Amino acid sequence: MKDQAERPLPTFDDVIAAHERIKPYIHRTPILTSEFMNKLTGADLFFKCENFQKAGAFKVRGASNAVFGLSDEEAALGVATHSSGNHALSLSYAAGRRGIPCHVVMPRTAPQAKKDAVIGYGGTITECEPSTTSREAVFAEVQARTGADFVHPYNDPRVIAGQATCSRELMEQVEGLDAVIAPIGGGGMVSGCCLTLSNIAPHVEIYAAEPEQADDAYRSFKAGHIIADDSPNTIADGLKVPLKENTWHFVSNNVTDILTATEEEIIDAMRLTWARMKIVMEPSCAVPLATIIKNPEVFRGKRVGVIVTGGNVDLDKLPWMAG
Amino acid sequence: MKDQAERPLPTFDDVIAAHERIKPYIHRTPILTSEFMNKLTGADLFFKCENFQKAGAFKVRGASNAVFGLSDEEAALGVATHSSGNHALSLSYAAGRRGIPCHVVMPRTAPQAKKDAVIGYGGTITECEPSTTSREAVFAEVQARTGADFVHPYNDPRVIAGQATCSRELMEQVEGLDAVIAPIGGGGMVSGCCLTLSNIAPHVEIYAAEPEQADDAYRSFKAGHIIADDSPNTIADGLKVPLKENTWHFVSNNVTDILTATEEEIIDAMRLTWARMKIVMEPSCAVPLATIIKNPEVFRGKRVGVIVTGGNVDLDKLPWMAG
Repeated sequence: MKDQAERPLPTFDDVIAAHERIKPYIHRTPILTSEFMNKLTGADLFFKCENFQKAGAFKVRGASNAVFGLSDEEAALGVATHSSGNHALSLSYAAGRRGIPCHVVMPRTAPQAKKDAVIGYGGTITECEPSTTSREAVFAEVQARTGADFVHPYNDPRVIAGQATCSRELMEQVEGLDAVIAPIGGGGMVSGCCLTLSNIAPHVEIYAAEPEQADDAYRSFKAGHIIADDSPNTIADGLKVPLKENTWHFVSNNVTDILTATEEEIIDAMRLTWARMKIVMEPSCAVPLATIIKNPEVFRGKRVGVIVTGGNVDLDKLPWMAG
Repeated sequence: MKDQAERPLPTFDDVIAAHERIKPYIHRTPILTSEFMNKLTGADLFFKCENFQKAGAFKVRGASNAVFGLSDEEAALGVATHSSGNHALSLSYAAGRRGIPCHVVMPRTAPQAKKDAVIGYGGTITECEPSTTSREAVFAEVQARTGADFVHPYNDPRVIAGQATCSRELMEQVEGLDAVIAPIGGGGMVSGCCLTLSNIAPHVEIYAAEPEQADDAYRSFKAGHIIADDSPNTIADGLKVPLKENTWHFVSNNVTDILTATEEEIIDAMRLTWARMKIVMEPSCAVPLATIIKNPEVFRGKRVGVIVTGGNVDLDKLPWMAG
């Protein structure tokens, strides 16, 4: 079994191959625009709606690329990951489409809805305690027992190449973009943007948007080396994870700037998008818009692609209803 | 001033003219599909997303057709209506685009958010008491004082011709439809579907979907004459109004059947759409899906266009959070 860190960094040829490979299993998601949002920000915003993606998030691109890139021999043993979020759903979905096992290690405290969704897509859950030690021990056991291929949520080059197909579509769908902005957690989507844009449109600026309360990427970017947060706490729960060596490579080399927003700004932007654009999206997806509203001087007059990363949200616990 | 009932019924030529007239002011809204919904229902569903329409609802089609069809002389006096819903917003939007006054009579008890939205689009509100007597008296006073052109929310032939552009787009966007289904309140959208389909695709079945608790159209359809509900009570607040002579003409002549759903079925279908399709839509829009789920034998194996009529919903009061 290869560790993903041993694999070489992905190239743009890998992105083209990934796109061809995953096309039958993903949506070419639509672009939405909003006159209201354009007036509000002074920019021309083009929202790439990965909330409409299969399994409800862009993560299915990278997961499908990993799953469908396996040889039949490798695939027979299945895939495995640890995640309680969209990567777990996406890997289960992709494995289900190929008809191979998918083993997901999740903390026993993860929401039942997430567990149900993984099972609904055909994944098998092994529960661990909600600690890094337990997760690593349980995951090692599962991997040893099954021989499944480990697909890391973002540090895996196959995953980065898969996520890069999103910005490739965006560039085909919208002419004359000046900038692209995406939320940053572990950096899989942002790395994908870097990989695509540095190859086919190196003049396009790349912004990453991060919650102020989980600003490890921001601090890493400013410091010039990876800094991991201790225990970040943000409503944007998809963005709590730290950068790893492969995503750091792209972020440190190709990102124009990282911008941050407060929890209140994120919730306001999320609610505004639901109310005005009529789309259901996760708190994480609202971080880019929050930073655009906060930094009008950066974006005014520009044509900006905004990656709406996913729509898997708990409809019983909307953040503006808290308290 | 003409009463809308004196105007002749609209023809398909009126629809073509309306489409040309309103194109600059409306979106050609996208079609969304969902593998999940297709599996659930056994039909191929094509959702026509008028929740992404200008002002958040299909009503802007009819309102724009009325506003932009006025002569300069007529337009100078403005337009007027009584509505506390999407028609009020849409007429205000359209009048604002033409730069003419829009007078809206609303009960003083209408939600502040709706009043704010009308004012935000440039409309002027005159409040009445929440009774038919007061509304009619106040509206007559406003019309006499201003000379504004009365644009009825659905019984106006210009409005019906405008709404008919929605199904015309749908037929251009999706090939080989077997049926179209839309919610029915006053019958403006359904009449528009009848007008378009009876002319360009008379083989396509037309279903209307109605809340069981506001089933006046269903009972009228079965009885063969208009029956108005006394005081209907449903979460689908856009569907409480009764049919009028012009919409009854189309409904009685061209509708295949009217299907009903309970409040619980409507709320379940609404939540399912938010959760699975990631779109924000009103309770009214969930009625068609609720009836499709309830009557699989009617739709199984068919290609069905489903009109999602609007997305103006109070995000603080989602129906599954009630109680």
